Amino acid sequence: MNATSVPRGANPAAEQEAFIAAVATELTSFLAEKHALLARISPDTLVLIDSIRKLVTGGKRMRALLCYWGWRGAGGAADDRAIIQAGAALELFQAAALIHDDIIDRSDTRRGGPSVHRQFGTLHTDSGWALDHERFGHAAAILTGDLCLSLSEEMFSLIAAGSNEPVSRAASSRARAVFNVMRTEVMAGQYLDILEEVSGPSKPHGTAVARASAIIRFKSAKYSSEHPLVMGGALAGADDELLSGYSDFSLPLGEAFQLRDDVLGVFGDPATTGKPAGDDLREGKRTVLVGLTIDAAAAADGEFVDQNLGRQDLSDAEVERLCAIMVDSGALANTEAMITELSERAFAALKRLTIADSVTEALSALGLAAVARTS
Amino acid sequence: MNATSVPRGANPAAEQEAFIAAVATELTSFLAEKHALLARISPDTLVLIDSIRKLVTGGKRMRALLCYWGWRGAGGAADDRAIIQAGAALELFQAAALIHDDIIDRSDTRRGGPSVHRQFGTLHTDSGWALDHERFGHAAAILTGDLCLSLSEEMFSLIAAGSNEPVSRAASSRARAVFNVMRTEVMAGQYLDILEEVSGPSKPHGTAVARASAIIRFKSAKYSSEHPLVMGGALAGADDELLSGYSDFSLPLGEAFQLRDDVLGVFGDPATTGKPAGDDLREGKRTVLVGLTIDAAAAADGEFVDQNLGRQDLSDAEVERLCAIMVDSGALANTEAMITELSERAFAALKRLTIADSVTEALSALGLAAVARTS
Repeated sequence: MNATSVPRGANPAAEQEAFIAAVATELTSFLAEKHALLARISPDTLVLIDSIRKLVTGGKRMRALLCYWGWRGAGGAADDRAIIQAGAALELFQAAALIHDDIIDRSDTRRGGPSVHRQFGTLHTDSGWALDHERFGHAAAILTGDLCLSLSEEMFSLIAAGSNEPVSRAASSRARAVFNVMRTEVMAGQYLDILEEVSGPSKPHGTAVARASAIIRFKSAKYSSEHPLVMGGALAGADDELLSGYSDFSLPLGEAFQLRDDVLGVFGDPATTGKPAGDDLREGKRTVLVGLTIDAAAAADGEFVDQNLGRQDLSDAEVERLCAIMVDSGALANTEAMITELSERAFAALKRLTIADSVTEALSALGLAAVARTS
Repeated sequence: MNATSVPRGANPAAEQEAFIAAVATELTSFLAEKHALLARISPDTLVLIDSIRKLVTGGKRMRALLCYWGWRGAGGAADDRAIIQAGAALELFQAAALIHDDIIDRSDTRRGGPSVHRQFGTLHTDSGWALDHERFGHAAAILTGDLCLSLSEEMFSLIAAGSNEPVSRAASSRARAVFNVMRTEVMAGQYLDILEEVSGPSKPHGTAVARASAIIRFKSAKYSSEHPLVMGGALAGADDELLSGYSDFSLPLGEAFQLRDDVLGVFGDPATTGKPAGDDLREGKRTVLVGLTIDAAAAADGEFVDQNLGRQDLSDAEVERLCAIMVDSGALANTEAMITELSERAFAALKRLTIADSVTEALSALGLAAVARTS
């Protein structure tokens, strides 16, 4: 397989849409099978699969798309079942991560509906069951996330099961290695994130940026950007040079994406982001932006940040003062400069890739959407 | 491969010991690799792998052993890497299930040490970190369980990666199908268990035994007994007849095992079981024994059970009255009769299996230990 198998003049947007539809179909029929299995166990268990089904029908399918273009750039055929299964496995994995994340963060909503633990909490209340609805909600969501994680793996293993040629077996085993590292790294990154929340305040000043950078690298940039793209390439049998080029593009892109997310979390327009102003500040997210602020702020301002970040009951005036400190200390400008630098690095690396023009075009569009967005 | 490849006069006990040692070695070197990966991310994340390592060094390795004898009975070689990896994958899966179970059940101890969420809670307290130690403990344990679940998958996928012959590829794919169903069923069974805890009291009398039976079937008997044995057989390429014979033996055995567990949880000697008397009653476990009690007890007694089961502050006198009701209603005797009937069914099926004598001997010993134990 090589890059020339991508037809000249192909329309990346239409192709992308067809792929997303194929992933949705794959997920639907796979989850219908699991629905039937659960129905044989007990109709009471069907809520588990229903909540997974609801969750995987939403979302931007960013990871699946990067995986797809990584595959296409390495010469994979547009309609190959293997890439559709890989995309579906990534979506299931992401759904599992969201279910457990929402328990950890105590988030009530997800993708426009109640989060999974809230759904189960409501089921408990509405049914008039005994004991505590919140505890039941958390327990049921832990199990639903575990099921979803297992289903992600099951979906991924279908790729190898379908590979009969020695070449594609080697490729699927290389893609599996990426999938494995991805899972371990994202869980380690999430742990660093919850650790920072509790231990960050007591760590020495001047070290917060480095820690926040490690978190966005493992929890976000590698997981949401680099690994999906490289996995797609590996699955299509890309050589080391192409895979390393993919990393040079997608890792800084993913970091820029997360920095943009952090900025929007504080300075974004609530009307566009859908998040109340000051939400990230009340939550106490210790981002690179926050780290830069603490490092650069004048003593009194730095103390104010340390003492108020993460206070659930921050007043609007206090939120405003925190924002002002981020601007006045130069932390916001520095973060924007980092986003620019990382984006430039990513797009320069994209230009160096020897892939079909339509793939470059598609990756470029995904990249721009990631770093220049307002929501 | 066929049954005659098991050497005559082999000593099952010694063989079993060698297998357990091989699984331990496999787990040690696998987790050492993951330790190195986490060390590259951040030394702060090593606690995740350390807590998994501690957990998988304990336990009776019941599932791994059943898997082994299923494999041996179908003619698998004693020292094949595939069965060692399958055993290691089952142990990792069980560790993941325990980590999340202990959060769900709020259990403070596991295998003689603190449960994983308690380890992280203590780390938080000892380090003097901010915010709530319990919430941090739960969050970290959710992530550790997720990591452990992923590692179980990763270990299992090594089996298929090592299968190059078409025959063994078919066998590993059949074993994978068992592994997949096992995971979905046990999670569904666990959900039925937490559901029963909250919804059981409001369900009509006379239906509790059926629900409790479904729970022990999916959460326990299939997961801990049938699936491991059948998986081992499938991996060695056993035919349908042998696999179905394995089920005929292991499913009733697993049910008997769980019924014995339930009886010991109420009537066991605390000195032998290591559990305080009345623990299961205070926890409110809605077992088959409890279901039989509610169905058979006189009206006043039945009401007493309904109102007191699951009360954390049950007095010793109340525990004694609950026990007396279980005896007087005939529920205990009925449960014992069920254990006897299931055991007899299991051992009759074992006799019908056409496997090497040493394998029958080993399975028989495991079976007896499961149903006739006092702890």
